[in-house]
Order: sequence, then C-alpha cells, then structure tokens
Amino acid sequence: MNGLMVIKIGGGEGIELEPILHEVAELVHAGQRVVLVHGGSHETNELAAQLGHAPRWITSPSGHTSRRTDRRTLEIFEMVYCGKVNKGIVETLRARAVDAVGLSGIDGGIWLGERKNAIRSIEDGRTVIIRDDLTGAVKSVDRSFLSLILDAGRTPVLTPPAVTSDGVAINVDADRAAARTAAALNADELLLLSNVPGVLADPNDRSTLIRSTHGAGLQRIREAATGRMKNKVLAAEEAIDGGVRRAVIGSANGQNAIARARQGAGTVFEGAFA
Amino acid sequence: MNGLMVIKIGGGEGIELEPILHEVAELVHAGQRVVLVHGGSHETNELAAQLGHAPRWITSPSGHTSRRTDRRTLEIFEMVYCGKVNKGIVETLRARAVDAVGLSGIDGGIWLGERKNAIRSIEDGRTVIIRDDLTGAVKSVDRSFLSLILDAGRTPVLTPPAVTSDGVAINVDADRAAARTAAALNADELLLLSNVPGVLADPNDRSTLIRSTHGAGLQRIREAATGRMKNKVLAAEEAIDGGVRRAVIGSANGQNAIARARQGAGTVFEGAFA
Repeated sequence: MNGLMVIKIGGGEGIELEPILHEVAELVHAGQRVVLVHGGSHETNELAAQLGHAPRWITSPSGHTSRRTDRRTLEIFEMVYCGKVNKGIVETLRARAVDAVGLSGIDGGIWLGERKNAIRSIEDGRTVIIRDDLTGAVKSVDRSFLSLILDAGRTPVLTPPAVTSDGVAINVDADRAAARTAAALNADELLLLSNVPGVLADPNDRSTLIRSTHGAGLQRIREAATGRMKNKVLAAEEAIDGGVRRAVIGSANGQNAIARARQGAGTVFEGAFA
Repeated sequence: MNGLMVIKIGGGEGIELEPILHEVAELVHAGQRVVLVHGGSHETNELAAQLGHAPRWITSPSGHTSRRTDRRTLEIFEMVYCGKVNKGIVETLRARAVDAVGLSGIDGGIWLGERKNAIRSIEDGRTVIIRDDLTGAVKSVDRSFLSLILDAGRTPVLTPPAVTSDGVAINVDADRAAARTAAALNADELLLLSNVPGVLADPNDRSTLIRSTHGAGLQRIREAATGRMKNKVLAAEEAIDGGVRRAVIGSANGQNAIARARQGAGTVFEGAFA
C-alpha cells in the first residue's frame, strides 16, 4: 500500500490550477493516495466586492490574520470555495480520469471545529472584541468517512468551512485544516503550496527563502513568518507534532510544483523538532 | 429495514426551507432513510443578474424549458446550487442532528449524464440550433457510492450539475435527476415538492389540481402540464417506470408538507400505468 499525501493548494492571486491538477492526476494514476485541500481567498474577495460586501480582515494581537466572517460573508465564501472552486477542481480532475469527490468540512462533519466566541482584533492600534464572527478552528477530523472514500479508490477534494458539533458552519484556516487532516490520516507528507516559494527572511525578496528547520532554523522561521505565512508555519508544525513525516511550504506554480516541493524546493519541516 | 424516500425540494421563488428541513430531520430521526435533492433556480437568477450575466432560457420545440448554460452560467449555477444552497441545507440539517453529506452530481460521478450536442430552441417563432450549451440529462446513477453513505447512517443531499463520462459538468433537470436516483436506489417514494400544489388543469387556478393518474388521468396531466411542470410530470413517470411505487408532485410550503404529500395532497402517480 502506498502512503498518503495531503496537498493543500492555496487560493491566492495568480495560482494556476491546471498544471498542478494535471500533476495530481498523474500521481493518482501512479497509485499515490492523495487528499486535496484547497482555498479560494482571492476569488472570494473579488465576488464579495462585486456583491457590495467588501472583504474585511481581523488581525489578532499575535499578528495572525483571518477573514471577518458574518453570515453574508459565509454565504459568499461558500459560493466560491464549495461552489465554483471545489466543483471546478473536481471537474478538472474527472476530465483526467480521477474519481474526485468534492466535500466541504461541513459535509458528514468531516472537519469538526470550535467557534471563537470572542475575537480580539487590532484596529488602528486598539484592541476590539468581536462576538458575532463565524470563525474557528478544526479540532477533529472524521477519519472514518475519509477512509471510506479513499478505500473506494476515490480522491477527496476538501475545502472550508468546518462545522461545530451543534451544526454551525465556521470559517477555518485551510492550511491548518489540511495539517489536522494529514495528522488524522497518518499521512507521510503535507504540502502547503501557494503563490509564495516558502518562508522568506525578507518577504519582499524571494532569494531569502529559508529552506529548512534544522538546527536553529525553526525559531528563525517563526520570526520571519508574517501575515498569512504565520498560519502555514503553525500548520506545518502541527502536522509534524501530529506524526506527519514531512511538511513542505512551497510554490503551487510552474511545472512539476508537487515534485519540486517533494524534492525540497521550499521550506521543509521534518521529524520531531520539539 | 425501512424503505427509502427521495425528496426533491424545488428552488423556485417563495420556498421556505426551514419547515421542510425540520420535517426531514424528524423523519431521519424516526429511522426513515432519505435522499434529499434540491434546486436553486430562483437564487441563481438573482445572482446572475447581480453579476451582470442575466439568465436566459431555452424552449424546445416540444415546449420544455431549460436554462441556457454557457461556462459563466455554469460557474454561477455551481456557486448557488453547490455552494450557498447545498451547504445551507447541510448546515440546517446538522443543526438538527442529521449527519448530512452535501454532494453534487459531479462528485464521485454520482450522476453520470450525456451532454446535448445540439439543442433546438424556439426563439421568436423560429427554430435555432445552439451548440455550446452545457446542458444534458442524467443517464445513470452511482448506486454504490450513495449506498455507502446511506449505510453509514448519513443523509445525502444532492444537487446538479451532473457530469459526462469524459468529465464535463452539465446542467441537468433536478426533478428528473431525482427520479433517476429514486429508481436506481429502489426507493418506495419520490416526492417532487415545489411552490405549486401539483399539476393544475388551469395553471392560474389552484383549485383545478389534478389529483390522480388513475384511469384517463395521465393523458390529461400530460396535456395540462406546461413549462417547468412538464419536467416534473416526465420525472414522475420515469420514476414509476423505473419501479418506484409512488411519486407525488406537491407543495413544499406550509407545515408538514412532506406528510401531506405522502397522504396524497398533490398529483399522485402510482404503480405501473403503461
């Protein structure tokens, strides 16, 4: 039996899905078991603006950013993530003879999470408390349902939202949900692929890529990661802590993006580094 | 083992989902196995208009109507059907402790269909041929995948599009897809519930409901059905031809809509009437 890979493809601006989905199809045809996780952030911003409900962001005191998610934002989010992007990916994979099954974390309670009751947000230097936000984090993954799909030779294509145990849909970070999924399924590898090549010491200079967590690297990576990259680093650490052998933060673009990430192009997290 | 019901809830204007989903939840908790199918037509029209891609319709020479579905329309369709409506239903059911799983007909190839290569459309009295439309009909249903979900105690919530064997997403009529699903799963009953009380002899007069297909009724029903009701009648006939014991075209609104339809409120199709 081949091992399992969890591949998260970001939803940022400028990510081309065709080449990477072609590569996913080749892996599946070669017998590799894959769980695909995707985002949809950029297209959600665009649709929200078109519909007159402009996106807003929350920055926590520790510097993490997340989408301000009221009920209307959640609907727009679901239209893009679960509708356009998820079904577009499933269609593209099926056209390449992959038996893909698109699911959100709500479906079957695959991603069970907890909603944040009060979120601290830094606005103009002041801390504000937000109480009606539909945001949270995945706490457990329904391994049995995903195994049912994988064992039938099908390829799950997962996307937020997640859902609480009392049935409220919540926006969750897809990188960290992918990490949870990789740990729950005992995946060998987690690839977090997006429109950046990895963790950069200087976010404006792609030549400052930090390649590895070996030695004193991890602390350096944590300090270098800003904005959304903070979530990717946390996700990679959570995956390794959860028993995943290897996590790579790398680029989703260009030819053979998956193969290159597996060969170490990006920021590589390995083994237990506690 | 209880039998299986397939319930199709329309997506027309003025359908309230909360009461009927509450009733679905009660049935599931009572041990009834249910497959839910839903539409999203009205909300798709609204979103399409908001996004500057106004809906258009095709009327076939035999009087059937279908949505003109170019690639952009398909994306908007998926945003509403697979995104907002499907995930909204799954969330509502999960909040009532139903382990719902939302899937489109693309996912896992649940609804395998054929695309129409050339559609004849009546426009201003003339017949026009349309070749780039992403429309078709379901030809087969993946019973094994749906059984896997049902046998695990979960409730599938299905919605168009369907997909061709070479992986092209196609818009299909959800009533007829529901009928195919009911036949494939050997369902006892198919309920086609929408914002009309059944087949009306006079579409503008709700007191002219035709209650039954017994005797000479079927021909009368076929003649009375116009517009989208034609598809519902065809769907009901296809279900009965496919071995479903009973099909009812009835109202989705009001208290106990499902119970009332089962008790015969609506247009009832029963047994073999060939």
